[in-house]
Amino acid sequence: MARRGYYFGAGPAALPDAILQEAQSALLDWSNSGVSILEVGHRSVAFIALFEQAEADLRELLAIPENYHVLFLGGAARTQFSMIPMNILSEAQAHAAYIISGVWSSLAFDEAKRFGAAYAIEPGEACRPDTAYVYYTPNETIDGVQFSDIPDTGTIPLIADMTSCLLSEEIDVSRFGLIFAGAQKNIGPAGLTVVIIRDDLLPLKPKHCVPTMLDYRVHIKHHSLYATPPVFQCYMAACMFQWVKAQGGVSIFDAINRDKAAKLYAYIDASSYYRSMVHDVHARSRMNVCFDLIKQEQGVAFLEAADACGLRGLKGHRMKGGMRASLYNAMPMSGVDALISFMDDFSKGINSCKSKF
Amino acid sequence: MARRGYYFGAGPAALPDAILQEAQSALLDWSNSGVSILEVGHRSVAFIALFEQAEADLRELLAIPENYHVLFLGGAARTQFSMIPMNILSEAQAHAAYIISGVWSSLAFDEAKRFGAAYAIEPGEACRPDTAYVYYTPNETIDGVQFSDIPDTGTIPLIADMTSCLLSEEIDVSRFGLIFAGAQKNIGPAGLTVVIIRDDLLPLKPKHCVPTMLDYRVHIKHHSLYATPPVFQCYMAACMFQWVKAQGGVSIFDAINRDKAAKLYAYIDASSYYRSMVHDVHARSRMNVCFDLIKQEQGVAFLEAADACGLRGLKGHRMKGGMRASLYNAMPMSGVDALISFMDDFSKGINSCKSKF
Repeated sequence: MARRGYYFGAGPAALPDAILQEAQSALLDWSNSGVSILEVGHRSVAFIALFEQAEADLRELLAIPENYHVLFLGGAARTQFSMIPMNILSEAQAHAAYIISGVWSSLAFDEAKRFGAAYAIEPGEACRPDTAYVYYTPNETIDGVQFSDIPDTGTIPLIADMTSCLLSEEIDVSRFGLIFAGAQKNIGPAGLTVVIIRDDLLPLKPKHCVPTMLDYRVHIKHHSLYATPPVFQCYMAACMFQWVKAQGGVSIFDAINRDKAAKLYAYIDASSYYRSMVHDVHARSRMNVCFDLIKQEQGVAFLEAADACGLRGLKGHRMKGGMRASLYNAMPMSGVDALISFMDDFSKGINSCKSKF
Repeated sequence: MARRGYYFGAGPAALPDAILQEAQSALLDWSNSGVSILEVGHRSVAFIALFEQAEADLRELLAIPENYHVLFLGGAARTQFSMIPMNILSEAQAHAAYIISGVWSSLAFDEAKRFGAAYAIEPGEACRPDTAYVYYTPNETIDGVQFSDIPDTGTIPLIADMTSCLLSEEIDVSRFGLIFAGAQKNIGPAGLTVVIIRDDLLPLKPKHCVPTMLDYRVHIKHHSLYATPPVFQCYMAACMFQWVKAQGGVSIFDAINRDKAAKLYAYIDASSYYRSMVHDVHARSRMNVCFDLIKQEQGVAFLEAADACGLRGLKGHRMKGGMRASLYNAMPMSGVDALISFMDDFSKGINSCKSKF
């Protein structure tokens, strides 16, 4: 199959061609079952085996300690913004601290305020004694910023929205009380949320009446099969975990992703035609490179020319403008090279790759 | 492509081969965009057009009046069990009446009791004056029973869990305050819930603090795009609505589905080898035909032989035992004929179709 070009969308995001081709064959007949992966029952022996393998692979990839549960939940990660305060706040620990670093952490904070006394802190700032958890967003997809270190919260559990960075870099899961991630960056298509939760994090009695479908305890007890899960997304996640393993695991992607981002930022910084939208070099996201043309009025022409070259999904978030190149695991270095080559040609008025894809 | 056999699973359920083949091509390059349907952005022009077409098609198929909103929500339909009482109960109308006809209505009732004064009624029974809504489940997937009429609730809004019957029969939407359905029967793969809600149903001030992702108002305001939707399931739903239209619309399926179920029940009733698990003929589900072998000990052999014939997914729900043949829209009459032919052969000790698929 001819290369489809490169898709730089921030999420839903690019998936490896090999996985898409595997999914194609499963769409009519999954694993010689005579049944499509879109039809197979979620309580069938074959699906349960796939589901268990997916969890085992994720545990291996991230070296998740045994005292953590792994959940695969249907729907968008944004539901976690409510689930976290609703499940974790108790009468004794009724406060939650939020580190605000961009749009997503700010939205999570807003939601938490509806369910309890959430307050904002700076990284490293001391918390009130009755604080149930500290929440932060290691990588902010919209703002293109990333923490270079994990905040030290002492004995207070740390919760991280890793939607746009899980599996892209090595992490020490034991530093966290809860990690969650929407699937549509490094895990699979939109419609699935992965939650990794330490078994002592949930209070005996939450402060709020938790709707059953938002209750971590229920999903833990039922091994994520309390309700019908998004079977196809679980299948895709299972494929992606196998793919990450086959490429050599998270440490390999950690290194490649650093190289990819470094190369693109270096080109942008050296250019007099483009500029990074994040000035603090230590805060720059490796996953979402936000940049702009110095002559912003050429943005539309830039996007049209890029699209004609098969370099798609480069438009920045509607709240921020500019451009954004998302470099998740499925984006190979060749995609970064193609982007830099195009950017360089465009800056010189050359449109050499037109109709290449 | 050779026929894959017939899949009688109750949900996730069979999908038409033509739709699965269409989805296969969209998996690598959707609509000549160069981007997979699993990658495409949910705010892209192309996806928004698809999303709007899906809503327009569903409105046309069910003749949904203009004063109803249509929502496409990520996740399982079971979340509605909480969303309904949380969104609709108010201080003035703090009670909800539930008609219990099987497993799913019973579970919905249990959840509602956690959020307010829910009470059980019989169909046609008068409600308390401060009743916000009457809830029922027209077709009970697990029990294989179906209401033959819509309960008359006077001026009290009627809410229906149509997960296993939406689009399978003609309905008068204006009789309902809210209709919801999980996708995995007649709409597409698991991971999407369709909600049809009358615009005056929501109180000015709900009694409960509603998590934002469970708030109908939020999803109405954002046209189901408050969070990232399950893009692939929305695509599949759009394809399925087009498919139902192309076959002639809901009235055609209404007639075919009656014929399919009538033929299978007639065979079972005439047989001395099988028996229906629903004795009241007026209560029998057209979607989920629950039956058993008179000699129940032959059930395992029956399922194995059926599977070898390419007739899959016939095992009854784990709570009920026996067999269950689900006959949603995607099941053609030829599937019912193949099942009856197999059942007849099996009852006579003939295993003629072994390795047919």
